[in-house]
Amino acid sequence: MSRFDWVEKPTLILDETVARHNIKTMSLKAQAQGIRFRPHFKTHQSAEIGTWFRQVGIRAITVSSIDMAQYFFENGWQDITIAFSVNQRQIGHLNRLAAQIKLGLLVESSESVLFLHNNLLHPCDIWIKVDTGAQRTGLSWQEPQAVIDIAKRIQKSQNTNLRGLLTHAGQTYQAHGTAQICPIYHESVARINQVHAALTAEAFRDIEISVGDTPGCSVCPDLGQVDEIRPGNFIFYDAQQLQIGACRFEDIAVAVACPVVAKHPARHEVVVFGGAIHLSKDTLMLGEQKTFGLVAFPQASGWGVPIKGGFVRALSQEHGIIHLPAAALERIQIGDLLFIIPAHSCLTVQLMRAYHTRDGGRINTLNCV
Amino acid sequence: MSRFDWVEKPTLILDETVARHNIKTMSLKAQAQGIRFRPHFKTHQSAEIGTWFRQVGIRAITVSSIDMAQYFFENGWQDITIAFSVNQRQIGHLNRLAAQIKLGLLVESSESVLFLHNNLLHPCDIWIKVDTGAQRTGLSWQEPQAVIDIAKRIQKSQNTNLRGLLTHAGQTYQAHGTAQICPIYHESVARINQVHAALTAEAFRDIEISVGDTPGCSVCPDLGQVDEIRPGNFIFYDAQQLQIGACRFEDIAVAVACPVVAKHPARHEVVVFGGAIHLSKDTLMLGEQKTFGLVAFPQASGWGVPIKGGFVRALSQEHGIIHLPAAALERIQIGDLLFIIPAHSCLTVQLMRAYHTRDGGRINTLNCV
Repeated sequence: MSRFDWVEKPTLILDETVARHNIKTMSLKAQAQGIRFRPHFKTHQSAEIGTWFRQVGIRAITVSSIDMAQYFFENGWQDITIAFSVNQRQIGHLNRLAAQIKLGLLVESSESVLFLHNNLLHPCDIWIKVDTGAQRTGLSWQEPQAVIDIAKRIQKSQNTNLRGLLTHAGQTYQAHGTAQICPIYHESVARINQVHAALTAEAFRDIEISVGDTPGCSVCPDLGQVDEIRPGNFIFYDAQQLQIGACRFEDIAVAVACPVVAKHPARHEVVVFGGAIHLSKDTLMLGEQKTFGLVAFPQASGWGVPIKGGFVRALSQEHGIIHLPAAALERIQIGDLLFIIPAHSCLTVQLMRAYHTRDGGRINTLNCV
Repeated sequence: MSRFDWVEKPTLILDETVARHNIKTMSLKAQAQGIRFRPHFKTHQSAEIGTWFRQVGIRAITVSSIDMAQYFFENGWQDITIAFSVNQRQIGHLNRLAAQIKLGLLVESSESVLFLHNNLLHPCDIWIKVDTGAQRTGLSWQEPQAVIDIAKRIQKSQNTNLRGLLTHAGQTYQAHGTAQICPIYHESVARINQVHAALTAEAFRDIEISVGDTPGCSVCPDLGQVDEIRPGNFIFYDAQQLQIGACRFEDIAVAVACPVVAKHPARHEVVVFGGAIHLSKDTLMLGEQKTFGLVAFPQASGWGVPIKGGFVRALSQEHGIIHLPAAALERIQIGDLLFIIPAHSCLTVQLMRAYHTRDGGRINTLNCV
């Protein structure tokens, strides 16, 4: 029936064709608008997949930790932004990296600027993190004076080259449907441009703007007044992105193949080997139903469309409890595989640590030692 | 101030004294009641921590996957139950293991018994999984005839030694407070004994009963008519167990030390390096507030009591957003550490992969290659 006879346990299957298509689409979109594409590598975390980006001309990347920066530096990347507020406790590692590559850092406080002034040994690009509504990190777009104050400190500090303003419009993840995503994206871009204008009024020059949420970058035709985009999840997408309206089902490039270990027809459920340690406990809402992922049958080419009425009802450490309509349940035998399209592919990749192609080829991540 | 100056990034800190005390307490409790203690090693997943169990006389263990069984076999364990319904796709690995150790397997369907009859090459103990109310896996306790039918098939099959009935009363995790846990635990024990009685009436002899949820085994003084307990989480406990009433705060043996990277006093929040890839996205409810963990200040000996009014409001891949009352927030500087007591320690250990003692000593798990 399927090519997946070699799958023995929960296995992260990657459709390389789809992933490469997603890379190319985003790359061409940025290029057409004269915007630098600095993809976030926290989603795939793989040196081999990194080369697919290199093949479409990408030279600058984003990561979310110093360890990840180290890994990609060791795999040939020389221009890396760590899109995470500076962790003072890793200054030794930061300095070793900064000695070898073009490193971008994020700050959002005068304490961090002072810390870098006192401790940074090599020049780094500094991005000021601006909160345009996500309320995670960054200085509020509503307080441009605070941004100006920090920008002045950066200019006076040692080894800190003020590069620009950076935001992540995480609030697009609250959208439902394409029509809601773009207004949120453009509102975020307008807000960071407002801060940019305040800096220009204070005679700051050549201040760049970097944005980069997958929903906005995926669906908004015009990416607006920005210099750089940094989406990451778009390479694989997932059930959450489908739900948001950021992708079509056929754009999803990863799913976890899970062996069926038990059938419970009276409960309309099957149990698979594939739990929280494979998929993560991230969720999405299917109408009123909370679920940990969508469910599909294997196909020779990968996985089919989601089974209508099927969803992952519960996860424990290794078990997935899957609700299925009777007709689907009847087709399944113990020992078969089901594919789960994860709620959040970034977390699933982190847990699974390696990809397999449908023929059983393995692709490692930095978490494979 | 603290001994944790060596911590640079999110680090799983293990209090060995507390963990060893938890092991000893559970071991003595089982011993006093003449019950075999077959601890579940899926929580700690560590050969070194396994030796702490060996030191209190444990020789038989439980795991949740074949890979975990392999790891502990390689680390000297010879009597292992894989408390997970047989995964037919790993029969080759199962047979290699069964040739070398005393292996216990779980079945819950006649299909699986037939599969083992046809494919198992070495004798294994077979446990019939009974669902006493958790609705995850197992034959319903309300259908003893189905259990009898499978028991008969096991007796007639090759290499399958019918060992007993096994349940996991996962429904104790829905309890609130000790007074609710024990009735649920004892109801589960009564239900599996009912099935046992049905087997005895059919002339089955020497059928054992194995149970093993951490809440029930921790707080119920009398463990009832069972031959074996298999709790796992009790070695560390966590915020969920505290919430359920299965432990006291001082029984919790693990927490994640997280560097503070940003302060947002206006929002009453700090941001730490420590996110979904460190803690997992498992949650608990603190009153009406969903949280990913409790928050504590470092102390020379480890971590303090939870900060009143503090909770982990949100997690993204690497960020933790922590709500704190003003008085606590004032004490914190960027670069400080905060400890997060995870919602679910099993998943946090899986993600963090290695423990550190408060002096910086490292303890590996099977996920450290």
